[in-house]
Amino acid sequence: MKRSALEAQIRAKKSVLCVGLDTDLSKIPQHLLQEEDPIFEFNKAIIDATHTYAVAYKPNLAFYEAEGLKGWKSLERTINYLNENYPECFSIADAKRGDIGNTSARYAKAFFEELSFDSLTIAPYMGEDSVKPFLAYPDKWIILLALTSNPGALDFQFLQVDEQRQLFERVMAKSQEWASEDELMFVVGATKANFLEKVRKVAPNHFLLVPGVGAQGGSVAEVMQHGMGSNSPALLINSSRGIIYASDDRNFAERAREEARILQGQMSVFL
Amino acid sequence: MKRSALEAQIRAKKSVLCVGLDTDLSKIPQHLLQEEDPIFEFNKAIIDATHTYAVAYKPNLAFYEAEGLKGWKSLERTINYLNENYPECFSIADAKRGDIGNTSARYAKAFFEELSFDSLTIAPYMGEDSVKPFLAYPDKWIILLALTSNPGALDFQFLQVDEQRQLFERVMAKSQEWASEDELMFVVGATKANFLEKVRKVAPNHFLLVPGVGAQGGSVAEVMQHGMGSNSPALLINSSRGIIYASDDRNFAERAREEARILQGQMSVFL
Repeated sequence: MKRSALEAQIRAKKSVLCVGLDTDLSKIPQHLLQEEDPIFEFNKAIIDATHTYAVAYKPNLAFYEAEGLKGWKSLERTINYLNENYPECFSIADAKRGDIGNTSARYAKAFFEELSFDSLTIAPYMGEDSVKPFLAYPDKWIILLALTSNPGALDFQFLQVDEQRQLFERVMAKSQEWASEDELMFVVGATKANFLEKVRKVAPNHFLLVPGVGAQGGSVAEVMQHGMGSNSPALLINSSRGIIYASDDRNFAERAREEARILQGQMSVFL
Repeated sequence: MKRSALEAQIRAKKSVLCVGLDTDLSKIPQHLLQEEDPIFEFNKAIIDATHTYAVAYKPNLAFYEAEGLKGWKSLERTINYLNENYPECFSIADAKRGDIGNTSARYAKAFFEELSFDSLTIAPYMGEDSVKPFLAYPDKWIILLALTSNPGALDFQFLQVDEQRQLFERVMAKSQEWASEDELMFVVGATKANFLEKVRKVAPNHFLLVPGVGAQGGSVAEVMQHGMGSNSPALLINSSRGIIYASDDRNFAERAREEARILQGQMSVFL
């Protein structure tokens, strides 16, 4: 997907909402377990119910791999359903891959050819040649981990690596030598104003994928106010559990829609 | 697998050889493409031919994911075949995973329950809670990326993060607070004496998984001489392409066996 198409969708829906599909058989409504492919049926219902308010969907690969072959099949059906029915929606394979060049090229084939995702999350530790193979695909995006929202982010990401910069800032600066803002986004699990401002100094106009609102506690308004790009709404704010597990009953899709609508309402004020 | 069992196997075979199963349909002998599952048939033949000389096998997940559902099935058949026929061999899922705690727990289920691997490679960027869930499984191992063998290793891994340490050394030191040497190994793509000596200062007795010999140019003798653990042969040296693609003809398994035998011969001098 081109940046202009993603921005147009954001303006049309007045939303930067990304729905995280962390679909877990132990948490979905129990009546779905009678279906042949409960994970897909759940995702389909969630997508159908929320697509008016969401601009992106992000399956979390771990939840699919944990179910083995069946899970991989559910993932394939999910991305195909999304692409066929809501081609305007941006899709993110939250896979956090990254390996030496010839291996990253195979991951690119997996997520951009075998599965037709628009983008893939990538871990930066292995540097340039682990990222480059993904850029060979026009209109596909990489979303590089910069600042994550978990406690372990403190272990390495904030290490001071030179007089001006901490590791996450160095990752954001260095990677801009490899890719343009039309193909590179950053994961920034920051929901506090001061961090968002630091991030926007290094990357004024790159899209940021921001996890950590909702179940993880961050505020949409604070992110919208301090995280927006310098000349476009270059944000995707993810909510997973807060939307998809709003109810574990037969009304789960309606309740998910309602939660998505509330978040979209908070976002629309700034768009 | 317990550390003592792995060490016993190393002593018995006089080998620290790990065979990397980077199985690529475009590189395997063409006659195998007539089989129902060419990737599995190739892996099976390689394992049967080399297990006398190798103590570990390492499927590289990207090569399986690139084939979609079929690839995942080939991977499942490969690990099951290995566990059933050569349970003494150590298995490594080279997947370079790592995510927030609840997600890493799902990856642990994927690789330690759905697929019965002994170990998994992990990227360190997200810190402690991205690593911990894997440690809940007794006798399973995590293999944390420290120093990789690719050019991009220079981008971040060598950044000076305090007066004494570069990032890769900090990763090795910090992670020892999370896990013991009976459950934590490091990927160290160093084949030069001076780097191996630096690494052994931080982790004198942890197992190191060393890629980069063979096709990538490193010398087995130098690694054996400078990388061995302080009180046990705590090394696994990986070769992928140099062994599995020694021939692309019908004699591929024999030729793989021959290459494995040569490497094992170089290793045995030090064991």
